[in-house]
Amino acid sequence: MSTTRIYNFSAGPSMLPLPVLEQAAAEMTNYRGSGMSVMEMSHRSKVFLDIFEETKADLIRVMKVPDTHDVIFMQGGATLQFSAVAMNLIGRTGKADYAVTGNFSNVAMKEAKKYGQIHVACSSEDRNHTYIPAQEDIDASADASYFHYCANNTIYGTEWKYIPDTGGVPLVCDMSSNILSVPVDVSKYGIIYAGVQKNMAPAGMAVVIIDKTLTGNEHPLTPLLMRYQVMMDSDSMKNTPPCYDIYILGLVLKWLDTQGGLEGMAKIKSAKAKVLYDLLDNSELFKGCAEKPSRSDMNVTFRTINEELDAKFVKETKGIGFENLKGHRSVGGMRASIYNAMPMEGVQKLVEFMRDFEGRA
Amino acid sequence: MSTTRIYNFSAGPSMLPLPVLEQAAAEMTNYRGSGMSVMEMSHRSKVFLDIFEETKADLIRVMKVPDTHDVIFMQGGATLQFSAVAMNLIGRTGKADYAVTGNFSNVAMKEAKKYGQIHVACSSEDRNHTYIPAQEDIDASADASYFHYCANNTIYGTEWKYIPDTGGVPLVCDMSSNILSVPVDVSKYGIIYAGVQKNMAPAGMAVVIIDKTLTGNEHPLTPLLMRYQVMMDSDSMKNTPPCYDIYILGLVLKWLDTQGGLEGMAKIKSAKAKVLYDLLDNSELFKGCAEKPSRSDMNVTFRTINEELDAKFVKETKGIGFENLKGHRSVGGMRASIYNAMPMEGVQKLVEFMRDFEGRA
Repeated sequence: MSTTRIYNFSAGPSMLPLPVLEQAAAEMTNYRGSGMSVMEMSHRSKVFLDIFEETKADLIRVMKVPDTHDVIFMQGGATLQFSAVAMNLIGRTGKADYAVTGNFSNVAMKEAKKYGQIHVACSSEDRNHTYIPAQEDIDASADASYFHYCANNTIYGTEWKYIPDTGGVPLVCDMSSNILSVPVDVSKYGIIYAGVQKNMAPAGMAVVIIDKTLTGNEHPLTPLLMRYQVMMDSDSMKNTPPCYDIYILGLVLKWLDTQGGLEGMAKIKSAKAKVLYDLLDNSELFKGCAEKPSRSDMNVTFRTINEELDAKFVKETKGIGFENLKGHRSVGGMRASIYNAMPMEGVQKLVEFMRDFEGRA
Repeated sequence: MSTTRIYNFSAGPSMLPLPVLEQAAAEMTNYRGSGMSVMEMSHRSKVFLDIFEETKADLIRVMKVPDTHDVIFMQGGATLQFSAVAMNLIGRTGKADYAVTGNFSNVAMKEAKKYGQIHVACSSEDRNHTYIPAQEDIDASADASYFHYCANNTIYGTEWKYIPDTGGVPLVCDMSSNILSVPVDVSKYGIIYAGVQKNMAPAGMAVVIIDKTLTGNEHPLTPLLMRYQVMMDSDSMKNTPPCYDIYILGLVLKWLDTQGGLEGMAKIKSAKAKVLYDLLDNSELFKGCAEKPSRSDMNVTFRTINEELDAKFVKETKGIGFENLKGHRSVGGMRASIYNAMPMEGVQKLVEFMRDFEGRA
C-alpha cells in the first residue's frame, strides 16, 4: 500500500486517524471472522448490533452522557438537524432564540423561521463574525422554546469559550466542528448535535444527544425519521441506519482512548493551536483573522498583507504535502483546520513552511 | 487478509461485489495518490468532485436516464423519501394514489397521509401480499398528484412485472430492492427512488431520479434538505453529501459494466432466481410463498411443511457458510435475498444444501 499521506487541513470532511483507516481497510472484506464487510451486514444481525451497542456505549462513556439524555444516530448531517430541532421543539411556545455567530448558525436560524417566531438573541455580524458575543450581550427570551447556538464557526475561526446562560431555557448546540475535542458538561444541554464529518466519522450521519424530556411538542408534519421520540423509541433503527458510519465512529472512539480521552485530546488540541497562534502573534506577514479571546482551536484563520501573497501561499503549499489551506470563498485568506486527527507534526511542518515563506516574502 | 467469505442472503444491507470491497480496502488510506482516504476529502475538492461526476455520469449511462430527468443523492434512505415525495409533490392537487403491496408501500402510504388525501388504488392485503395486483385491478384517480408503488417487496418476495398505467398521472416508484437488476424505461417515471443498501452501496443514501418538471408544489414546511428543487440546484451538495457512499456506488457501477450492464445483470439475476424457483417447484418439502406470476427475482421466500423444520433449516445453514436465511419476523419461513452481488455459486450451494436437507427430512 502506498502510504505517502498528506496533511489535509480541510474544514470537513477532514482527516481521520491513520490507525482507524488501516483497521477499516484490514477488516473491509471480512470483519473479525464474520465473513462479511460491515457494509454488508444486516442492521438487525447480532454481529452488527454488537458494533452498534459498543459504539453507543463508548460515546456515552467518553462524553459522560448522563442517564437523563439519550444518544441517537441520524442521517442528513447537521443541516437536516436545523429543520429537525425546530420541528420537534418550537411547538412548546412557538418561539425560539438563535445566536448568529457565523454562516451555519445563520442558515439554522433562517430554516427555523419556517416553523415559528425567531428572535436573534445575539449576533457577531457587526464585526464580520470575527468574535463571539459576551454573556452580557445576549438578549435571551424567557419564553423561547429553546436557545440555539453553534459552538465553533469553521469559516470565521471562532469558538465559544463559555456556555451561554439562558435562565433555564433549554440549550441546543451545534457542535459539528468541535465535538470530542474537549470535555463537555452534557447535563447543561437540551440537545447537542453534530454532523460527524470533522471529528467523528465520514460524512453521512449526525449524532444527537438529547434530554429525554424535551419531546412532546412535535409539529404534526414532522417527517417520521426526523421525530426525536421515534428515533429514541427505535434506538436509531426506525429504518436502516448508516451502519458503516457507526462502525467508523466506534473505531475513532477507541483511538480517542489512546489519546487520553477528551481530557487528553483537550490538551493536544490546545497545544496544536498554540503553535499556530504563537506564529501568527509574532509574524510581520501573517495575521490571525479572529479576535484573540474568541479564537477557535479547530479552525485557525489567517491572512498575509495582501491577496496576491495569500494566493501565492496557498499555491505553494500544494504539492509539498499540504492540502485545503485556502480560506472559505466568503472570507478569503487562509484557514488551517486542525481537528483531532491532524497530528502535531502536521502543524509543526506548516509553521516551518510559514516561517520559510515569510523569510522569502 | 483472511478471506473466508460467506454467502450472505440478507435482505439489506446485503452483499457487495468482492472486487469493490477489495478496491475500497486498497484505496482506503491513499486514494490513487491523493494522500487521502475518500472519507477525508473535502466534498468541494477537485479529487472528490471527479469521483462525484463520474459516479453520476455512470449512473445516467447505465440506467439510460434521459435529459428530462436529473439524478440526486440524498441522505435518509428510502424512508425519508416516503415523506419527501409527499411534501414535494402532493400540493399539486392535494391527493395521491398508493398501491399497497407490502410493508414498505404501506408505511409510505401512511406517512403520505400526513400531507394530503390518500387513495389506496390497489392492495394485495387480501391474500397477505403474496401477489401483485393486475392492471385491471388498479383504481387510479385522474386527479392524483402522483401514483406511488414499490417495485419489489422484500418481505413477501413479490415484484411488479409491468409498469402501471395511470392515465398520465406521474408515477413514483420505490425501487430500493431491485434497482440496477434490470433495464428500466426511466422516461415513464416521474420519480424513481432507492435506498442504496441492496444493489448500490452501503446504507446511508438514497438515489432519486426525478423528472425536472415535477417540482413547484412543495409544502412550505418542507425541510431545506428534502426539497428536490434545492437538491437539483445544488447538484446534491446543499450540505456535505455522503461522499463515501457515492464513491462505493461508483465502484459498483464499474463492476456492473463487467457483468454486461443492466442487460447482462437481468440475465444473471433471472438465471439465479430460476435455480431456486426450479427447486421449489419440484420439491416435496419446500414451497414458495409468493404466487408464481408475481415472484421476485431478488427475494425468494419459501417454507417447509412446518415451523419446526423451518427453524431446523435456518439453524443448520448457519456455520456452513450461509447467513440471514430466516424469513422476516412478520411472515416467518425462509427468505433468500439474491441481489446483484450474490454470485450464482452461492445460489447453487444453497440449492445443494436444500436438496440434501430434503433428503434427510
